Amino acid sequence: MKQFINAKETLVTEAIDGLIRTSGGRLARLDGYPHIKVVLRTDWDKSRVALVSGGGSGHEPSHAGFVGQGMLTAAVCGEVFASPSVDAVLAGILAVTGKAGCLLIVKNYTGDRLNFGLAAERARAFGLKVSMVIVDDDIALPHLPQARGVAGTLFVHKIAGAMAEAGADLDAVTGAAQKVIAGAVSIGMSLDTCTVPGSPKEDRISDGKAELGLGIHGEAGVQQVDFTGARAAMAMVVDKLLPHVSGADNVALLNNLGGATPLEMSVLAEELARSPLGPHLKWIIGPAALMTSLDMQGFSVSLLPVTPTEVTALAAPVAPSAWPGLQGLVAIPIKPLPDGLAPIRALASAHPGRRALIERCCAALIAAERDLNALDAKSGDGDTGSTLATAARALVKALDALPLADITQAYRAIGNELSQTMGGSSGVLLAIFFAAAGDASASGKSWIAALQAGLQRVMQVGGAEPGHRTMIDALAPALAALSGGIDAAARAARSGADATAKMTKAKAGRASYLSEDKLSGHNDPGAEGVARLFEHLVTA
Amino acid sequence: MKQFINAKETLVTEAIDGLIRTSGGRLARLDGYPHIKVVLRTDWDKSRVALVSGGGSGHEPSHAGFVGQGMLTAAVCGEVFASPSVDAVLAGILAVTGKAGCLLIVKNYTGDRLNFGLAAERARAFGLKVSMVIVDDDIALPHLPQARGVAGTLFVHKIAGAMAEAGADLDAVTGAAQKVIAGAVSIGMSLDTCTVPGSPKEDRISDGKAELGLGIHGEAGVQQVDFTGARAAMAMVVDKLLPHVSGADNVALLNNLGGATPLEMSVLAEELARSPLGPHLKWIIGPAALMTSLDMQGFSVSLLPVTPTEVTALAAPVAPSAWPGLQGLVAIPIKPLPDGLAPIRALASAHPGRRALIERCCAALIAAERDLNALDAKSGDGDTGSTLATAARALVKALDALPLADITQAYRAIGNELSQTMGGSSGVLLAIFFAAAGDASASGKSWIAALQAGLQRVMQVGGAEPGHRTMIDALAPALAALSGGIDAAARAARSGADATAKMTKAKAGRASYLSEDKLSGHNDPGAEGVARLFEHLVTA
Repeated sequence: MKQFINAKETLVTEAIDGLIRTSGGRLARLDGYPHIKVVLRTDWDKSRVALVSGGGSGHEPSHAGFVGQGMLTAAVCGEVFASPSVDAVLAGILAVTGKAGCLLIVKNYTGDRLNFGLAAERARAFGLKVSMVIVDDDIALPHLPQARGVAGTLFVHKIAGAMAEAGADLDAVTGAAQKVIAGAVSIGMSLDTCTVPGSPKEDRISDGKAELGLGIHGEAGVQQVDFTGARAAMAMVVDKLLPHVSGADNVALLNNLGGATPLEMSVLAEELARSPLGPHLKWIIGPAALMTSLDMQGFSVSLLPVTPTEVTALAAPVAPSAWPGLQGLVAIPIKPLPDGLAPIRALASAHPGRRALIERCCAALIAAERDLNALDAKSGDGDTGSTLATAARALVKALDALPLADITQAYRAIGNELSQTMGGSSGVLLAIFFAAAGDASASGKSWIAALQAGLQRVMQVGGAEPGHRTMIDALAPALAALSGGIDAAARAARSGADATAKMTKAKAGRASYLSEDKLSGHNDPGAEGVARLFEHLVTA
Repeated sequence: MKQFINAKETLVTEAIDGLIRTSGGRLARLDGYPHIKVVLRTDWDKSRVALVSGGGSGHEPSHAGFVGQGMLTAAVCGEVFASPSVDAVLAGILAVTGKAGCLLIVKNYTGDRLNFGLAAERARAFGLKVSMVIVDDDIALPHLPQARGVAGTLFVHKIAGAMAEAGADLDAVTGAAQKVIAGAVSIGMSLDTCTVPGSPKEDRISDGKAELGLGIHGEAGVQQVDFTGARAAMAMVVDKLLPHVSGADNVALLNNLGGATPLEMSVLAEELARSPLGPHLKWIIGPAALMTSLDMQGFSVSLLPVTPTEVTALAAPVAPSAWPGLQGLVAIPIKPLPDGLAPIRALASAHPGRRALIERCCAALIAAERDLNALDAKSGDGDTGSTLATAARALVKALDALPLADITQAYRAIGNELSQTMGGSSGVLLAIFFAAAGDASASGKSWIAALQAGLQRVMQVGGAEPGHRTMIDALAPALAALSGGIDAAARAARSGADATAKMTKAKAGRASYLSEDKLSGHNDPGAEGVARLFEHLVTA
């Protein structure tokens, strides 16, 4: 399995260094690599209760990512899925603990309990006040007396963190942590196992199956269940949580186990809100990656009944950017669509001269249909002629309804017509051309200057310039010459269109994906269409 | 491919609803589902320049996740990897644009350019001031005149967002956006393709390979390269970026393309800092998922030369929690290890009575080695006897160095000895037992009360209680009876140890993983060891 690491042996220390480097100076580490991996706040003066957590790595951002003002004082990191040593924990405690004492927040795994426990004893031998709480929020194995500690640990980090930051004493912080632990429950579901660096991936969960009640170290779920979509998945998780709903006000924590996409997590958030648990939830934390299991494509939901004091603590701002904040779980505010989505239709009005001009242009494009299709077939799908001719026929039919007497409104109306009858990029670009010409005309520009403004906008939006082998290669010189009369414009358009036969490196549009030999020696069909149109106006 | 979605057709609308629900009331949407998917700020009064961005979905948190104070005013979301319609964009513009006007921030893809472009024209026909910038930061295809817009788009969102929030006018905001676009460059690398919902996954990148210069819609990379680890991967990306370094002060944006783990991203951050680009980087945004490509296991680095004004804009606080903030890229502060990691060794002192007692205890355990091993072999790996005997032999050897005359120091010293000579959980638990006994003794407790305090701590840390089929089943009754004399303690220990033979559901320790028939009918070897010890003290 490929991963962006250098070596299993240096993975954790390099990742910690990367975290510290990108923390803007908020974080430091102890000089104990590779054995002692302790991340610390740099703004810590030991005047308040220190919070130390940690455990095996592979659960990032837990725990080092939550070191900072308002959350942890230090994190003691083991190798992936392995408890840190007693010495490492002791180093962490000694580095941050002052007279106010230290609370150790430990997930309920034997190695962590023992190593943090012995380190606590050693620290006490120095006369330090050290208390320890053990988080056991997992409800996957209801009959196990030693429930595992999973994402509910974040509730403890945050609430104890806010209290310690505010200056509460060790007994108060410890008591608050114990209350949270007594109330927090969690359970997760995954579609795949995690990839442990340096180990082959276990292929345990077959197609159509998911694991409910998995662990965060690759431990198999309590049961394999049929996977039929996000709704049913969340329903199974909610089913396990519902019996634990106790308080009136509850916070949910929606945790990404590592490999679920933001889209999936948002769908799951919606399903959680719609579920029978939804009405019991007043606030939500996430969805976010908080307690991951490497790259596991799964999620967990943690639930905590809360007092107003705890809500305040959960909502308090913190330094670590990995903390997503507490949000009210709200109904979706839906605002009405704005007026104006239907194009404004000006009243029809007559202008025989303009009508005749438009009819002649349309006739030119209809007459060129077969030739332009043939030209397009040499480098494309052979439909440029039909696309233009179809739009021209529709425009002729619409002439009675157009506001021809008002040039500004006429331009805009032609743009609307083309955007509705002519598909694809060309239709949008011509709609933009005429809409922008209408705007320019409204601001007082002459009809020629208005068309030139339309061209400028098409070039800006479409990104094509003269020389890119598009219709612009004929249209730009034609409009530039138009003030000299239609003959001059037609000559310029023809010259421009013919020049496209030598442009073998198309730089915009579909032809930019084609090789030189497919383009050489024949005109771009769009540019040829423009030339035919102007030439037709001369002869008509 | 399994994903936590319900159906491809409802994926984007459900995900948007999930995002809005978990935004605490900050976000709303227009009533245009399923065709018009527009996410808006609820705190918007149209008094300042509106920023509208969007495009195909699948890049979350871009763009809806960045709607909020200080960043976008609205996001117009298409289906996965598909541009939103002209109507959808127009609805977004009309919903948020007041007299101050609106800036459209569009990534450089034909569909987005055209649809946002035509919507802008339509909005202008209503007399609204609308400008549009096109982000083209990708440098993977240096000869393509139409570079793609990728993660550098976030620089534009953030800097334009801060300016608009501060009340700058449309020209100033547009100009600032254009300057950022002119300076931003990005390139990415991936180890795997992305999984498009409803489509089979393309298996394009073989083992040992990576793609450099990929697109964010599953477009193949410009080249497949050998993948040899994070360092070489970052070196290739840096190599492409270095020629673009221009200013003195640069910001890097390290983007997770979706499926890289936080550990991998932190390793990549460290490699970026150590690379030849590192010295040019004063600030960093991320590592974070900012412009993803569904679940792609890849990353991108974007680079922007910045003025002090732009730094202020990038650092300004914003409402969206998906924005990770701007951080200084710093050297790693390394703090010295605290004193006290080496256990305090009290001076050796003699106490013949205690020495004799310890020697007798050790002799008891050494004598029981074979029996306890045999007992352990029935439910475990048969080494309990050897573990205890080895520790006992080591303790006897260490007696000359122990501070036996001071009971407090003697307890602590025995704990230290055991933690060093006895491996595994038992060693740590016994070390905790004696360390806690030492603490209790230091606080004035009698030697028996001190041992009972040690037991209490072992039960708290280890999580085992009487009845869990551990050595505690013999130790707890023995210590409770000890004040009545060693005979009473021995009887209590024996009774407790024998009771473990009927405990067929172990609730702690390794035996908790075993079935009943493996446990029934024989004593727990730890409890038996304790009983043998006390019995030996009676007879010795």
